[in-house]
Amino acid sequence: MQIGLIGLGKMGIHLAQNMLRNGNDVVAFDLNQDAVKEAGSYGAETAFSLDEMIEKLDTPRTVWVMVPAGKPTDATMAQLAEKLSADDIVIDGGNTYWKDSLKHNRLLTEKGIHFFDCGSSGGWRGALEGGNFMIGGDDKEAFERIRPLFEGIAQKDGYLYTGKAGSGHYLKMVHNGVEYGMMEAIGEGFEILEASDFDYDNAAVAKLWNHGSVIRSWLMELAQDAFEKDPHLDQIQGRMHSSGEAHWTIADAMDHNVPTPVIYEALCARFKSMQEDTFDGKVVAALRNGFGGHAVDKK
Amino acid sequence: MQIGLIGLGKMGIHLAQNMLRNGNDVVAFDLNQDAVKEAGSYGAETAFSLDEMIEKLDTPRTVWVMVPAGKPTDATMAQLAEKLSADDIVIDGGNTYWKDSLKHNRLLTEKGIHFFDCGSSGGWRGALEGGNFMIGGDDKEAFERIRPLFEGIAQKDGYLYTGKAGSGHYLKMVHNGVEYGMMEAIGEGFEILEASDFDYDNAAVAKLWNHGSVIRSWLMELAQDAFEKDPHLDQIQGRMHSSGEAHWTIADAMDHNVPTPVIYEALCARFKSMQEDTFDGKVVAALRNGFGGHAVDKK
Repeated sequence: MQIGLIGLGKMGIHLAQNMLRNGNDVVAFDLNQDAVKEAGSYGAETAFSLDEMIEKLDTPRTVWVMVPAGKPTDATMAQLAEKLSADDIVIDGGNTYWKDSLKHNRLLTEKGIHFFDCGSSGGWRGALEGGNFMIGGDDKEAFERIRPLFEGIAQKDGYLYTGKAGSGHYLKMVHNGVEYGMMEAIGEGFEILEASDFDYDNAAVAKLWNHGSVIRSWLMELAQDAFEKDPHLDQIQGRMHSSGEAHWTIADAMDHNVPTPVIYEALCARFKSMQEDTFDGKVVAALRNGFGGHAVDKK
Repeated sequence: MQIGLIGLGKMGIHLAQNMLRNGNDVVAFDLNQDAVKEAGSYGAETAFSLDEMIEKLDTPRTVWVMVPAGKPTDATMAQLAEKLSADDIVIDGGNTYWKDSLKHNRLLTEKGIHFFDCGSSGGWRGALEGGNFMIGGDDKEAFERIRPLFEGIAQKDGYLYTGKAGSGHYLKMVHNGVEYGMMEAIGEGFEILEASDFDYDNAAVAKLWNHGSVIRSWLMELAQDAFEKDPHLDQIQGRMHSSGEAHWTIADAMDHNVPTPVIYEALCARFKSMQEDTFDGKVVAALRNGFGGHAVDKK
């Protein structure tokens, strides 16, 4: 089928190749003209403006949005609501907060445009070779129009229509919350091994654990890859960036009074890792000094 | 090769079948005579006492101990130290605390017996079909004598000689700590989905997540199996038993000043799940009542 693809960053450019390999016609647009040309080199039709992309699509159109969550996605949805026509389909494949997706859904459905919020997992490799997609949207019939697209670009059994609008991005949000917890558990485990009285070969351990242990997983395979390249990860800092999904997961869990200590601690570990020094630490050091005369480490 | 196998519980009886299938001769002993007869029905030579087992083994002997950790393993090791001979090999395949394994190592090596502490992962299915083994022991040369056994009973790449005595059970302990964290993250994720405003098919979600997502893992496959049988797990209680390994992981991490919040919270979640009511809860309710007159739930 024919797809207008907006956003040719790390995920989008790989997704374009995946779509093309699966027999789809892609009309590719990005603000970065080099990215558009790169997509063109893979066989996509190029569009150097949103209007050009829209003109080049047959009606009813299918548009996949793969731009950063937040303002870039909000702005794109506003433009699409204005420029597209009734019965067109918009798929947001980004990591949009599910409540924002509900807003985008209202915005687009008011114009008769069908909206799908599609959480995408599997990283850029998944985007390229066969991804994992969680797709919400109020119009199940319209979903049948885009099902063939997912049959092609997803891994076998790697996509799911999850029900009403918002449910796709919500599920992706929770997926990422689980991912935070699993990753932190793995990280803590290897930190204990590094500090232990024994002398483990981290790559050999990760490889072993991937062959028949209870904790075998794709994340452990990625750990194995990393340790094979750099046995004690000397080349990287332990700063753990985060991009919002676990934050939202915790906020939503609290709204529903669901205790989620592990996901919460995994998020806090990321926040802590980004701090050079902590005010918490200064306060506690000052108090220990205050009541017990314990020495503080002077700056 | 010939192995004396002590302990024919859930793990041992499956391991016996795995050993036999891989061309080993097994002399099987357990205090439970029915289990010994069952092992006999699979082709093991039966022994109804420890002495009978020891008599039936050619020297130098190889003995695999697969009994519950703690007192049963301690008692078995004391008996073996007394009854076996120099150059025999003892493998403890159970979930023994690594510091206990160091004691067992001293006890046996004093008599010239070679000791290996072998953490076993993969559950009973692994024990039966190809397990995952982390093997510590001071005598690397003696390990070469038992390597062919592991080549057969482990999954491909599913065993590792981890170095000096204690390192096998230590690694298994940390493996289980990581397992606690990963499991709790998965559990919390599905609890959020259950509480959400959407209507997810848990089995379909777990299946989806196993096909290309970042959190694909054997644990998620087990979740899929569980949800396929019982979509909302109505048939079971959320009581999470534990058998010590995460407890030891946390204790050892604290000994080394390694922060492990996720593994710790996973362990606390298990403890909490076993409480009918909490004294903590009573205290906090009483205090809220004290300062603010907030109602308490009377017993």
